[in-house]
Amino acid sequence: MEKNNYLLGYENLKLFQDTDMFNFSLDSVLLPNFVTLNTKIKNILDIGCGNLPISLILTTKTSAKITAVEIQKDVYDIAYKNLVMNNKQSQIDLINGDIREVYQNYSTESFDVIVCNPPFFKVNELSHFNKNDYKTIARHEVTLNLNDIFRISKKLLKNNGVVAIVHRPERLVDIIQSMLDNNITPKKIQFVYPKLGKEANILLIEGTKNGKPGIKILPFLVAHNEDGSYTDEIEKYFK
Amino acid sequence: MEKNNYLLGYENLKLFQDTDMFNFSLDSVLLPNFVTLNTKIKNILDIGCGNLPISLILTTKTSAKITAVEIQKDVYDIAYKNLVMNNKQSQIDLINGDIREVYQNYSTESFDVIVCNPPFFKVNELSHFNKNDYKTIARHEVTLNLNDIFRISKKLLKNNGVVAIVHRPERLVDIIQSMLDNNITPKKIQFVYPKLGKEANILLIEGTKNGKPGIKILPFLVAHNEDGSYTDEIEKYFK
Repeated sequence: MEKNNYLLGYENLKLFQDTDMFNFSLDSVLLPNFVTLNTKIKNILDIGCGNLPISLILTTKTSAKITAVEIQKDVYDIAYKNLVMNNKQSQIDLINGDIREVYQNYSTESFDVIVCNPPFFKVNELSHFNKNDYKTIARHEVTLNLNDIFRISKKLLKNNGVVAIVHRPERLVDIIQSMLDNNITPKKIQFVYPKLGKEANILLIEGTKNGKPGIKILPFLVAHNEDGSYTDEIEKYFK
Repeated sequence: MEKNNYLLGYENLKLFQDTDMFNFSLDSVLLPNFVTLNTKIKNILDIGCGNLPISLILTTKTSAKITAVEIQKDVYDIAYKNLVMNNKQSQIDLINGDIREVYQNYSTESFDVIVCNPPFFKVNELSHFNKNDYKTIARHEVTLNLNDIFRISKKLLKNNGVVAIVHRPERLVDIIQSMLDNNITPKKIQFVYPKLGKEANILLIEGTKNGKPGIKILPFLVAHNEDGSYTDEIEKYFK
C-alpha cells in the first residue's frame, strides 16, 4: 500500500487508507449511519473492521465500548495507526485475529450490536497488493461467509440485540435465509442506487435476534448525480 | 357499489370501478408493467383478478391466452362488464370461482406466467360495501394466503415460468420464505416509495420456478410529487 492518503474527513476523524478502495469506503460510511443505536448500548462488535472506518464513525454516535477484529496483519497495522491518530484507544479494543476463532473468547449474549462489512473486493481493486496479500484477502472473502456472520451473531448478541451488514443486493435472498436460520429476524433494509434509473448496487440490512416479524424498507439513497459527483445526501456522510 | 366511474384510461382500455379503490388501482397498474413477458408466452393466470385491470392491461402487451379467476360474484360481475366493454372475450377466459379449488381443473405445468394482486384492503376502503360483502372479502384476504399463491404456482407453472405479485413491503420476508418453500427463486424486486424521503409502501416481486439464485433490485419508483400529484413515471402508466 504505497498510495495512502487521508480519504475520509468525518467530523473530527481522519482515516488513513488507499484511494483505490473508494467503493469500500462508501459502504463503510453508510453502515454506521444505518445501524440502530440507542443510549442503552454497552458493547459493539465490528467484524472484519478493515482500516477501522466503521468503528471510528461509531465513536461519534455512541459511547459504547467497541471491539474491532481484523484478520489481516497488514490491514490491522493501518487500523492501529488510525486508532492512535484519532486517539480512540480507550473506546475501541482493536484485535488482530480471525473472528471465527476469536469469538469463542467472548461470553454468550455479551454484545448489543454487531456490524460487519464483509469483503467483496473486485480484483482490480486489489491490484496494488502483492500476491500474498491478495491471496489472503481472497481466502478471507471465501471463508467468512454469511452463515459465519449470523452464526456468530446468534451466539454473541443479547436477546433483541441487532446485527447490521452492508452487502450487494443480489445476495438479499441468501442473507435473509441465513438470518432466519440463526433466529435473526430481518427488520429494516435500505437500498442505495448508484444513479436515478439504475438498479440498486448497495444493500444495508439489519436484523434483531428473536425479533418479531415485519420489515421496513427505509427511504432510498441515490449515490451519484448525473455528472458522477456525490449527491447531497451522500456527501453529508463525508463531512 | 354506487359511485362507479371510469377511472383508468390505458391505451384504448376503459375500466369500470369504484373511486374509493384508488390505491388498489395503482397496485394493479404497476404489476402488469413489472412482470416479465416475452413472445413465447402462451398461457397466463391472473389469480384474484378483481375488476380485471391486470388482465386487461396485459392484453396490450401480449397475445397470450389469459385465464382470470375471481372468487366474489359481485366483483366478477364488474369484471365481466369490463371484459365485454373492452371486447376482450377472445383473449381472456374469466371465471367466477375460488382459485384454491379451480386450480385443480388445470394441468400441471400449464402456465408460463402467473400474476396476483392479493387483497389487502383497509377497512375504510370497504365502508361502502354492505356487511355481507365486507365479510366475504375479509375472509378472502385471510384464506388466500401467500402459501396458497406459491403452492398453486409451483403446480401450475411450467419449469422456469414466473409468478409476479404486488404486496406490502413489510411482508417481504414472508414472501421470500414462501417462494423458497415452493421451489420458486426470487429473481427481481421493485419498490415503490410514496414520496421522496418516505419508506417504501408497495413491493413488486417476481420469482422463477426452479430458477438460479441471484436477485435484482430494479430502479425505484416514486408515486407522488410533493403536492400529492402522480409523478411522471407513474402518470405514464395511466395513459
